[in-house]
Amino acid sequence: MLQFAVTMPDWAETELAKLPAYLPTLPERMTAVIRFSQLNVVHNTGGPFAAGVFELHTGKVVVLGVNRVVPQHCSAAHAEVVTLSLAQQKLATFDLGGPEMPAYQLVVNWRPCAMCYGAVVWSGVRSLAIAGSGPELEQITGFDEGPIHPHWQAELGARGIEVIDNVLKEEAVTVFHTYRERGGLVYNGRLGDAAT
Amino acid sequence: MLQFAVTMPDWAETELAKLPAYLPTLPERMTAVIRFSQLNVVHNTGGPFAAGVFELHTGKVVVLGVNRVVPQHCSAAHAEVVTLSLAQQKLATFDLGGPEMPAYQLVVNWRPCAMCYGAVVWSGVRSLAIAGSGPELEQITGFDEGPIHPHWQAELGARGIEVIDNVLKEEAVTVFHTYRERGGLVYNGRLGDAAT
Repeated sequence: MLQFAVTMPDWAETELAKLPAYLPTLPERMTAVIRFSQLNVVHNTGGPFAAGVFELHTGKVVVLGVNRVVPQHCSAAHAEVVTLSLAQQKLATFDLGGPEMPAYQLVVNWRPCAMCYGAVVWSGVRSLAIAGSGPELEQITGFDEGPIHPHWQAELGARGIEVIDNVLKEEAVTVFHTYRERGGLVYNGRLGDAAT
Repeated sequence: MLQFAVTMPDWAETELAKLPAYLPTLPERMTAVIRFSQLNVVHNTGGPFAAGVFELHTGKVVVLGVNRVVPQHCSAAHAEVVTLSLAQQKLATFDLGGPEMPAYQLVVNWRPCAMCYGAVVWSGVRSLAIAGSGPELEQITGFDEGPIHPHWQAELGARGIEVIDNVLKEEAVTVFHTYRERGGLVYNGRLGDAAT
């Protein structure tokens, strides 16, 4: 069978099972996401990024996921793409904004990169909550966010996707420091060039 | 096991096995990609999009893939993301531009959308060859390319990814007409809104 697959680390399944069924407030949701980003660093199972999909109004937890680029050999396996895909396959739909469905929110521990910005558009979520959008991530870790649309927040807004910024920013940034201190791999594209 | 997976249709595996090991010229590569896009329409196994990853200089075929958004419940399963991910997992690396590797080319039957533009950046390919980049796709099929970076070709170029446009454009457009004539689903995000 010709396919690609992206698997979560074992710890993520265990942690997911421990979460309550509902995380009613946004700080609760972001706290869970930041915790997953930290665990991904501590367990050395991917980059310092995590995301969660929740029912927007009730906080019902659909799924949380983490960055799996390096261990799963997949440059698209950013936390957002992974988590949106896990949520869609769990709910058996490609469209989280489909008819007769509740509104969904994606919660992420930093702003989207050039790719994930587009992935958010196609996902059907109605809300994107992020811990921050400033230069801190790139400055601390060396990760490259890529050439994102210069007016990405406005473009998401124009498509009916609210963007909520600066949710527990300091807590998110702490994990980036941890990643750097541990010497985590910065897997920007084209390592071949960097090596020449 | 918590994972998401995107599987190719059975016909794609069969067709892939029939291809020669090398497709030396770009028109040969694009012909194979357009044929896959057409077969995806005829078999009703996804949107009218296909892509291929090839060794740039020799034309060695790594893999071809097709759009699987609707059947696989995955809004990120555009032809580009699918095919790059298949190639990376086959070659056991997240970086097709890694050290000691040959240069790779992604061949697609139309320009990238807002998401796939970013996916190309992260993939490590050195070359993107497309059948066209004009309004024909959106006009014929109703598919939405999304709010892509206004200078996406220049941004790719700035990152060392050449963009070759207008390769067998008429042949590619023919498949879009076929898709419309067969009443293919246009799975833009947020069908929930369209339905209200």
